[in-house]
Amino acid sequence: MRHAPSPVLRSAPRLAQIEPFHVMRILEAAKQLEAQGRDVIHLEVGEPDFATPPQIIEAGIRALQAGQTFYTGACGLPALREAIAGFYADRFGVHIDARRVIVTPGASGALQLILALLVGRDDEVLLADPGYPCNRHLVTLCEGRPVNIAVGPDSRFQLLARHVEHHAGERTVATLVASPANPTGTVLELAEIAQLAAACRKKNVALIVDEIYQGLVYERAQETALTVAPDAFIVNSFSKFFQMTGWRLGWLVAPEWAIPELEKLAQNLFLAAPTPAQHAALAAFSADTLALLEARRSELDTRRRALCKILTDIGLTLPSPAQGAFYLWADCSAFTDNTETLAARLLNVESIALTPGRDFGDNPAFMRFAYTQPIARLVEAGERLRRSLAHGCTS
Amino acid sequence: MRHAPSPVLRSAPRLAQIEPFHVMRILEAAKQLEAQGRDVIHLEVGEPDFATPPQIIEAGIRALQAGQTFYTGACGLPALREAIAGFYADRFGVHIDARRVIVTPGASGALQLILALLVGRDDEVLLADPGYPCNRHLVTLCEGRPVNIAVGPDSRFQLLARHVEHHAGERTVATLVASPANPTGTVLELAEIAQLAAACRKKNVALIVDEIYQGLVYERAQETALTVAPDAFIVNSFSKFFQMTGWRLGWLVAPEWAIPELEKLAQNLFLAAPTPAQHAALAAFSADTLALLEARRSELDTRRRALCKILTDIGLTLPSPAQGAFYLWADCSAFTDNTETLAARLLNVESIALTPGRDFGDNPAFMRFAYTQPIARLVEAGERLRRSLAHGCTS
Repeated sequence: MRHAPSPVLRSAPRLAQIEPFHVMRILEAAKQLEAQGRDVIHLEVGEPDFATPPQIIEAGIRALQAGQTFYTGACGLPALREAIAGFYADRFGVHIDARRVIVTPGASGALQLILALLVGRDDEVLLADPGYPCNRHLVTLCEGRPVNIAVGPDSRFQLLARHVEHHAGERTVATLVASPANPTGTVLELAEIAQLAAACRKKNVALIVDEIYQGLVYERAQETALTVAPDAFIVNSFSKFFQMTGWRLGWLVAPEWAIPELEKLAQNLFLAAPTPAQHAALAAFSADTLALLEARRSELDTRRRALCKILTDIGLTLPSPAQGAFYLWADCSAFTDNTETLAARLLNVESIALTPGRDFGDNPAFMRFAYTQPIARLVEAGERLRRSLAHGCTS
Repeated sequence: MRHAPSPVLRSAPRLAQIEPFHVMRILEAAKQLEAQGRDVIHLEVGEPDFATPPQIIEAGIRALQAGQTFYTGACGLPALREAIAGFYADRFGVHIDARRVIVTPGASGALQLILALLVGRDDEVLLADPGYPCNRHLVTLCEGRPVNIAVGPDSRFQLLARHVEHHAGERTVATLVASPANPTGTVLELAEIAQLAAACRKKNVALIVDEIYQGLVYERAQETALTVAPDAFIVNSFSKFFQMTGWRLGWLVAPEWAIPELEKLAQNLFLAAPTPAQHAALAAFSADTLALLEARRSELDTRRRALCKILTDIGLTLPSPAQGAFYLWADCSAFTDNTETLAARLLNVESIALTPGRDFGDNPAFMRFAYTQPIARLVEAGERLRRSLAHGCTS
């Protein structure tokens, strides 16, 4: 059809399978309301409300003043790769060669590299539904097939070894899990990751673990899958815990065999990660930066507890304990089976912006709440929500 | 084969078609020599030796001081999109809606978006050989087929309308040209671009014009393909002319129908371009920045003339006038039919780093010389080259 003698160019078939973030429409509408003077509470944004720690900003400024504006090597500044390897040693007692670390433009860049390496056409990647939508779209961009596996409270919305054993077939090349996960905030136990790794090994499938919310866990210790799955592909980021979202900086840790291929892909896909950001990130692991980040983590924990209480008091259900990230995944089925409609109404009537479950797969009765706002705003959001839902919102 | 019951994971078939930059081996070897105290002259690097203009650096610092560290929208800061649209109006008299501008992480990001949009599996993209190698590899990453068309001095190493008419077939979806081009430095005339656009339109093929070296032209006026091909996809960058390589910032201008699709891809591929870089780039179009850049362009022109004379005096042939970028594309067939061997020898014996033709396609007798070094270094390189080639280098 696209090659018919038409004067109109067409997009590739894959575009039909890639959805936009539906929340962007919410955001647009929210901005219009704000332009009209409305006080919108933003609980839809996947970004901490803290600016980057001053230590990191100052390191970035020093780098710019010193004229550090040239390309780095495709895998990143050697000093930053060493610092990241050192972080695994110091914090987790995991010793990896710095050459196994590749610095990338955000975790998006890391994930793209890994999928471009592993996923040929029609190859399958197992993913949890609900899950971060970009992941399945990046599989589609490689002409692979995302296999979205419906997961529920019985596995804390996580893919486990039994899912891999059941779903991995001839064409399956990788399993992608996230811990802590977006949108659910649930965490995989190390024992579960070890079982996942064993199941993947048995099926000759790569295990990819997204740890971009690694530092943001509550009521438990920070962990890395590398402890129990040394041959996994690990994706991480300076965005969330280190609060460097706009700098676009992440990293991956890969098994040694994959590094030359990943380097080749990095050269072609993006040349290198941003240089000022890489110099700034050298200050991310210093003791005083980590102390500040710990204080902010603690603040997020306080908000998490507050929002959990607010939502359950209203009558929403939180089916699995959210022990990480900065999201709550709320079952709204007591009120509606269409959270997209509910989200639109909550925005228009109560000026609360939320992300409906549809953005994360086939979850029409769920809503994601981000606690990236101060407590007072969460409380205010709760009052507005209570008012709205009390007025009978059966979709 | 990759699905055989082997415990070893394998990379996707496309990896076999993606070559590393061979010059990276040269660079590695050069670094080792430098570590031994050798004085290596770098004529292999595709990066200006000027740091980013101070006005741009200062704007970046101000943004960081103001805490501008959050994500921007996927298409970039509205003010930067407006500034870029204004640049086309001011400099070229071309009026485009700022919504047609998408800010990207480097030109790599722009090209990736456009190819992901246009190229389905087995779709063909016409490209010039010699040409920038990432371009064909990005086509391969989309599971498309790069069609490398051998071009020579008779078309100044450029793809022209006649090539499109001859090579565009059922599966062809795009033609990608670069003006000024890498590695040849040759420029397409606007009349040629108009003919290319007409040929592409007739064949229902998209025209993509890489203008990342746009500001770096010599003995002629700066131009844009938009003047004669308003429906083309234009790729540009803050890296080369604006000397912001390490910041990773570029842009594209696309026809209106493509913008929603490209925005969707940008959300998934990289979320947004780096925020500090976007704020810094707001200072790129100011009169004093442009005056400094003009002085630097003039310095590059002086080097270009000097290196042209040096190389032709030695007996190398420059088949086409290099009117742009910062490269000379030298035919070395009077001395060798294997510039890879020659490059290795020149590095080891004379400490000159160069990029052999193989990095740009099937050009074993060609060598790329970058004049990204001060005149004195170019002169010194010439003396070393003369000495080496005089000692009989018939490969």
